[in-house]
Amino acid sequence: MQELAQYNAYLEKEIAAIDFPKSPENLYNPLRYFLNLGGKRMRPILTLLGAELFGETKENALSAALSVEVFHNFTLIHDDIMDEAPLRRNQETVHTKWNQNIAILSGDVLFVKGYQLLVKQRPEHLQALIQLFNQTAIEVCEGQQMDMDFESRQDVSIDEYIEMIRLKTSVLLGCALEMGAVIGNASESDRKHIYSFGQNIGIAFQIQDDILDLFADPDKFGKQVGGDVISNKKTLLNLQAFQLASQDQKQILEKLSTEKDLQLKIDKTKELYEVIGARNVCEKEMEKYHLIAMKSLSEIQVEEPVKQTLKSLAEFLMKREL
Amino acid sequence: MQELAQYNAYLEKEIAAIDFPKSPENLYNPLRYFLNLGGKRMRPILTLLGAELFGETKENALSAALSVEVFHNFTLIHDDIMDEAPLRRNQETVHTKWNQNIAILSGDVLFVKGYQLLVKQRPEHLQALIQLFNQTAIEVCEGQQMDMDFESRQDVSIDEYIEMIRLKTSVLLGCALEMGAVIGNASESDRKHIYSFGQNIGIAFQIQDDILDLFADPDKFGKQVGGDVISNKKTLLNLQAFQLASQDQKQILEKLSTEKDLQLKIDKTKELYEVIGARNVCEKEMEKYHLIAMKSLSEIQVEEPVKQTLKSLAEFLMKREL
Repeated sequence: MQELAQYNAYLEKEIAAIDFPKSPENLYNPLRYFLNLGGKRMRPILTLLGAELFGETKENALSAALSVEVFHNFTLIHDDIMDEAPLRRNQETVHTKWNQNIAILSGDVLFVKGYQLLVKQRPEHLQALIQLFNQTAIEVCEGQQMDMDFESRQDVSIDEYIEMIRLKTSVLLGCALEMGAVIGNASESDRKHIYSFGQNIGIAFQIQDDILDLFADPDKFGKQVGGDVISNKKTLLNLQAFQLASQDQKQILEKLSTEKDLQLKIDKTKELYEVIGARNVCEKEMEKYHLIAMKSLSEIQVEEPVKQTLKSLAEFLMKREL
Repeated sequence: MQELAQYNAYLEKEIAAIDFPKSPENLYNPLRYFLNLGGKRMRPILTLLGAELFGETKENALSAALSVEVFHNFTLIHDDIMDEAPLRRNQETVHTKWNQNIAILSGDVLFVKGYQLLVKQRPEHLQALIQLFNQTAIEVCEGQQMDMDFESRQDVSIDEYIEMIRLKTSVLLGCALEMGAVIGNASESDRKHIYSFGQNIGIAFQIQDDILDLFADPDKFGKQVGGDVISNKKTLLNLQAFQLASQDQKQILEKLSTEKDLQLKIDKTKELYEVIGARNVCEKEMEKYHLIAMKSLSEIQVEEPVKQTLKSLAEFLMKREL
């Protein structure tokens, strides 16, 4: 999608232009560093597309788009502390490059920066935009807490898992799009539909991520195939496998979780997930949310050709190679 | 001040009634716990008084008052992590009672809760209230960063120290009062004056805190006298002492900083601060900011009797016993 590259370039320029004071250096240098590590900038692109869908210019939606991106980066800085992650986009995380206290505090400031950008929007839209932003921010934190809680739980249900990814990653896509719709003066029902489109594409994308992590073509996949299996991470594949497995298969899966030969661990788990039918069930689940998303898009009351960019975007997101 | 007790009781009830979801428990139980540890509730009281000064009811300012208190508690939860503080109001801090990740994340959620409370205010006041809240939140973070930076610096100037306490603690008092004024439809100039009153009373109070920490009557002081001296904390007393000391006195002060006999360390430092004149200079500095505050209060365009509660409050704050 060539258009995406144009939106991305526009946003990269505007993100680089976000102004931070010079001092205290330990508060603001981490933010200059982290915000400019790049990325797809998918969330702010969604806000721009949401506004354009309802006839508003991308320039008028810019500050809201930036607030979404800034918020996303705030959550990454804090999540990286909690996950003890040394790297993000192949660069040092803030708590690694500086220290943990600086990562907590500069994250806090970045969060406020999100509200500062959002409040630049027209006064008549402020209440709706800020309520949406607040609600989403709280849900994202709830999702992160659920994810952390799952690490020490053995009884995570598939519904709980879907709820976790919905909160942790998908509501922000819905929020990004709906913010654009608010700015474009969309009707209440169109706002609901575009939010639903974003949220359900997000869930489908996240399920696809779980599948790709194990079944992707290593030559085309950006990172190590099988990372989730190696770290025994609870994913939809893993939860489905345990739910569908026979008693014998469960024992094999449990034994594999402590297997020291990592390539063997990946190969055997992959084989078993296919046999058990976990991969198949996950693909159907992914397709289910994809369909809900496309139905929501179809219900938005704007001319079909105007929806083309969002349609192509959804297609682009769901066609990553296995 | 009997009135304060009434405002405090009103706020305690409303704080206890702040509604949090049941789950995730690890996210919301810490907030229920921490918000109900008590305290003077000075900041939200200021918002109520600010609104009443301009003829608005305290009920109409309540959600803004709560947002200030909630924000303050968010900063305490995160500061306690950074300071590795085990106790707050003689109870376990969140990162001690739960863990650090939970303290980061529940703090983040509490911050959003502040915005959720604030956005309940009338739409026509939202832009002003949120801009003020954003600006203050950023300054409080800047103050905390300066405070952390000072720990490893030997060249902190008195101006820098005053700027640090202004940002870390005093701007929030100005913000709390000005929020009330915004809700009470005060003029721009009255808003500036009431903010200045709060900020400068805050600086004076903080300087008084530094003095009391060493010179308070142990029988009347709530905590250990000399705590700052024991931990070699940079305070206004300490910075003034080093600035005014002769070469010999500096050497004695430096030697005292490693003195193992803590009572001797406190007694000798106290004596020296008096001899050098540091105590006297600090008291004058405190009085300076107190006077600026009272001048700002006098410039607010409302009848003098209406200002009586704020005047008594200022008096109450500045008359803690030495």
